[in-house]
Amino acid sequence: MNNLNPNIKKLLKGIKTVNLTVDETADGIIKGDRNALSRAITKLESFIPEDQKFAEEVVKKCLPYSGNSRRIGITGVPGVGKSSFIDYFGEKLIDLGKKIAILAIDPSSSVSGGSILGDKTRMETLSSKMEAFIRPSPTAGTLGGVAAKTRESIILCEAAGFDTIIIETVGVGQSEIAVSSMVDVFMMLLVAGTGDELQGIKRGIMEMVDILVFTKDDGDNINRTKINKKQFEIALKMFPVKDSGWIPKVLSVSAHEKKGIEDIIKILDVFFEHITSNNYLIENRQNQSVRWLNDRITMLLKNSFYQNHRIAELLKTVEKDVVEKKISPITAANELFNEYLKSS
Amino acid sequence: MNNLNPNIKKLLKGIKTVNLTVDETADGIIKGDRNALSRAITKLESFIPEDQKFAEEVVKKCLPYSGNSRRIGITGVPGVGKSSFIDYFGEKLIDLGKKIAILAIDPSSSVSGGSILGDKTRMETLSSKMEAFIRPSPTAGTLGGVAAKTRESIILCEAAGFDTIIIETVGVGQSEIAVSSMVDVFMMLLVAGTGDELQGIKRGIMEMVDILVFTKDDGDNINRTKINKKQFEIALKMFPVKDSGWIPKVLSVSAHEKKGIEDIIKILDVFFEHITSNNYLIENRQNQSVRWLNDRITMLLKNSFYQNHRIAELLKTVEKDVVEKKISPITAANELFNEYLKSS
Repeated sequence: MNNLNPNIKKLLKGIKTVNLTVDETADGIIKGDRNALSRAITKLESFIPEDQKFAEEVVKKCLPYSGNSRRIGITGVPGVGKSSFIDYFGEKLIDLGKKIAILAIDPSSSVSGGSILGDKTRMETLSSKMEAFIRPSPTAGTLGGVAAKTRESIILCEAAGFDTIIIETVGVGQSEIAVSSMVDVFMMLLVAGTGDELQGIKRGIMEMVDILVFTKDDGDNINRTKINKKQFEIALKMFPVKDSGWIPKVLSVSAHEKKGIEDIIKILDVFFEHITSNNYLIENRQNQSVRWLNDRITMLLKNSFYQNHRIAELLKTVEKDVVEKKISPITAANELFNEYLKSS
Repeated sequence: MNNLNPNIKKLLKGIKTVNLTVDETADGIIKGDRNALSRAITKLESFIPEDQKFAEEVVKKCLPYSGNSRRIGITGVPGVGKSSFIDYFGEKLIDLGKKIAILAIDPSSSVSGGSILGDKTRMETLSSKMEAFIRPSPTAGTLGGVAAKTRESIILCEAAGFDTIIIETVGVGQSEIAVSSMVDVFMMLLVAGTGDELQGIKRGIMEMVDILVFTKDDGDNINRTKINKKQFEIALKMFPVKDSGWIPKVLSVSAHEKKGIEDIIKILDVFFEHITSNNYLIENRQNQSVRWLNDRITMLLKNSFYQNHRIAELLKTVEKDVVEKKISPITAANELFNEYLKSS
């Protein structure tokens, strides 16, 4: 402790002295206190049972104050310019009087709460604004937990008065499906090219897209972008109509030359008007909540099964036997399940 | 009993007298006895625990004899001409010396074992051939059971010597995802049109397609089919590359004019050569088996939870509370899970 930089020592001391109750934390959040919000999210993401219990209570108290935001999912593979786009997008929204929370999910990295600084550096403009709250989600090592934590973080951010919640993902993993189950609108960023860049995108993601945005629409890219936009407009028409009745739109933007964001904001307005007038916004959120409940139950059931010592011991052999056709998967599952019932 | 039609009485008596052991049934199947196969599938689909146990034992004995087939998923909305296509397709395959089993899954209908006749009528040519075995899967009322039963039926059919297994679905429900997890190749049938017909197809299905076939490529449809084929060729290129490395192909056929099936059979040969040479066929089947094991475990866990009386009692209220934002889905799930642990 004595070897620490004096500034860090001061900071640690500061953190230690703060020991708010559930009510104080919830009240703080509802009044827009960013520190209370940060601390609550940290507890939400903690693996310590008391912290989780505490966070759950806070979420419960914040629930009635949640829901008044636009929940926007943004995905794109690394290199597509997500940070620059969000920085530019967020700045414009703040100019329009919005308050923005950005929750970043990156299951491929082992980020911890400590990487916030890295994230803030990514978005230069936003990180200096009081109207923006940037928070990466540490997801490493959680089993199905990504979605759960982020969903509750959305609630806390909304209670804290943020009216635009951006959930950012990298577009290459399972997390997009989870994200699409907690947002109102799903945007995908792409850079114009030969089509090879699509290889990194997991199948199924394209079908979730409401708004497709080509980034870096500047310099050499302008012509390519124009061609790509047309191709994708045709391609997206081949997909079945979405439950929302919305027909996906294709736009382009240049964060570098600061052009195109107005059109995207306009399309978002049209989108939200569409899903508000046909009641999809509310129905979808209700369905999402019920699905969230059931997903969580499935997760608890699976955790209880796979973390059972006896099962963990047996599973490897059983999987091998299944692959080698010594036992049918069904019989194997039945036998494992009976073992589980006996040993739990 | 005495009021029954004498023929039915005779039939019932016939069924009753057949009471083979597990070994006799398995031996019968392996020798290619269609009656043994039919009875084993019936037991597989039965809700009586002893029947299921019996069927599991049979499957176990048949496992070493399974795997030597092409497992082909075929989907298409009603009206697309699935039966005519399969009838035409199957006839050609039989001409080439193949033995074909057709397992039909239709979760929207409440078919029972008794609808076999209906299915046989659908496929006039095949139903008269000894080289074809047609079997609809009763799926009504099963929770996650569709896939499990069909997967085991595939094993039994393979053990009985069928070298081409066709799994037929209607293309509008959840079952396609289950089917794609048990076949080597996924074909979708479409009729050329304005694109409206795509509305019935569930999102996500298009991404699973290996071979897209336009049916009814005759008369007025020829021109439309030509245009549609081109459009879909472009559209399918927009999808990310599949794990198999296969680029989806678009073909057309007319069962009425008996044209086009040779090309489809040729493409299937190319496909299987492709996935055999890059080892995807084996790897994919091994992955499917392990996923099947885990899917089944999840199903057993969920059944145990949702069929728990206390949970069933609580769930409705809890879901309502969640929708009304009285409780967070996470907290609700935790509370329900604790109730479950207490009462099971």
